[in-house]
Amino acid sequence: MSEIEELRAMVEALAGRVRALEDQVEITQLVAQYGPAVDSGSAEAAAALWTEDGRFDAVPQLRMRGRADIVAMVNGGHQSLIRNGCGHVLTVPHVVVDGDEATGRSYALNIRWDAEDDRFWVARVSANTWRWVRTAAGWRVAERVNANLDGTPEHRAMLAPRESGAPVHPVEERYGHE
Amino acid sequence: MSEIEELRAMVEALAGRVRALEDQVEITQLVAQYGPAVDSGSAEAAAALWTEDGRFDAVPQLRMRGRADIVAMVNGGHQSLIRNGCGHVLTVPHVVVDGDEATGRSYALNIRWDAEDDRFWVARVSANTWRWVRTAAGWRVAERVNANLDGTPEHRAMLAPRESGAPVHPVEERYGHE
Amino acid sequence: MSEIEELRAMVEALAGRVRALEDQVEITQLVAQYGPAVDSGSAEAAAALWTEDGRFDAVPQLRMRGRADIVAMVNGGHQSLIRNGCGHVLTVPHVVVDGDEATGRSYALNIRWDAEDDRFWVARVSANTWRWVRTAAGWRVAERVNANLDGTPEHRAMLAPRESGAPVHPVEERYGHE
Repeated sequence: MSEIEELRAMVEALAGRVRALEDQVEITQLVAQYGPAVDSGSAEAAAALWTEDGRFDAVPQLRMRGRADIVAMVNGGHQSLIRNGCGHVLTVPHVVVDGDEATGRSYALNIRWDAEDDRFWVARVSANTWRWVRTAAGWRVAERVNANLDGTPEHRAMLAPRESGAPVHPVEERYGHE
Repeated sequence: MSEIEELRAMVEALAGRVRALEDQVEITQLVAQYGPAVDSGSAEAAAALWTEDGRFDAVPQLRMRGRADIVAMVNGGHQSLIRNGCGHVLTVPHVVVDGDEATGRSYALNIRWDAEDDRFWVARVSANTWRWVRTAAGWRVAERVNANLDGTPEHRAMLAPRESGAPVHPVEERYGHE
Repeated sequence: MSEIEELRAMVEALAGRVRALEDQVEITQLVAQYGPAVDSGSAEAAAALWTEDGRFDAVPQLRMRGRADIVAMVNGGHQSLIRNGCGHVLTVPHVVVDGDEATGRSYALNIRWDAEDDRFWVARVSANTWRWVRTAAGWRVAERVNANLDGTPEHRAMLAPRESGAPVHPVEERYGHE
């Protein structure tokens, strides 16, 4: 290999590592936009974090399919939450990228204002599983499941490291989704 | 273009992407230092996260201008909080970098120890907006606004995605800042 | 220096910056796995985040040495927590990398389900200090100390920026560890 070919190979290897870092940062930043979007009532911005046909299961009560369902959620029942005062506080997920797909695990806290007591109360601490896909416009959420850590075995099992070939969202079987 | 010129162009493009990643990581790490600094009573370390003339608005009660004001806050009213026991838990912000400036949105939780009940209580969940600037010493906070998510419409509006040209901190108008 | 030597120097400098970014992301992702591992009861996965002889002090009650101690903790007293419902919510640490070692500061929240009140309560907000080491298998935890922010001066001091040469875990002296 000539000196210049060798150098080119080094640059190409480096470019692959940079892309892997970009994937991590982009996915983390995608997730960082969810809370601010819904807590400001920005329904379209929240929905735009998903793919057109993206899925969002808030177990067990809400099963959203496609961006219109997410817009409807933010403009619907969610309004009373934000008028009262609330924070949807998500943690940075553990992300595993596999080509143009990625999966992840994290927490979501739903904390609500209690004007009478001049303090907040923690309504939900949820296990979250994610599936993201790389699109022409960048990474988007293909699937998110959010399930309360209330002792239900299937909910905490969502947080386990995913074995190769295992389904992303074991909780779905419990609720008969698809 | 010669082979070596082509390779140089590849390296320069890659360097730009690496710098963009460094900006993200540096800003995230800057924010990650705020809580530990104030909760350990490290007043100078907290102030050093800002530019010399940086601004920090804890809406509506506190309006800090410059590092000396931040030092005074940590060494002042903040002391009773940390002697009692508390955590200023900040989330990873959504960051938008534009050259040598950046803006962001995130949450800050103020959680306080209740020795009698042997548990913590959540005093505040706040919307945060940030403006950072690149200085010779690295990224620093130029402006932070922190406002409780208590149902006040202007506070939750702080978390909305910023439209191009929109002010970073709409809440400031409400409080007549500058 | 020839044109190609100059270019090679640029690529090598860039490779160093990419490695620094990878260190940050890998350590952050290591920490992001702790909560999901323990809250799903994945004892081996939790222990594997540490080095073989890694240390984990949950001040003051629990002093774990080596992976077997961590496995025993998850399979032991921790079980009643997860059967009841709980979230171990960790923040992104401030990380300082120094060659093949790194140190960090962060928070850990321990939030527990109260089925009767249909809400969570915050049992602990802890100061965390970390020491990580680069191993052949990637970054691992060499030492973690977790101490409640209950007003104890030594606990909040753990969150202070570490001076060069200062011990990572001043709290250990208080408890006479090693």
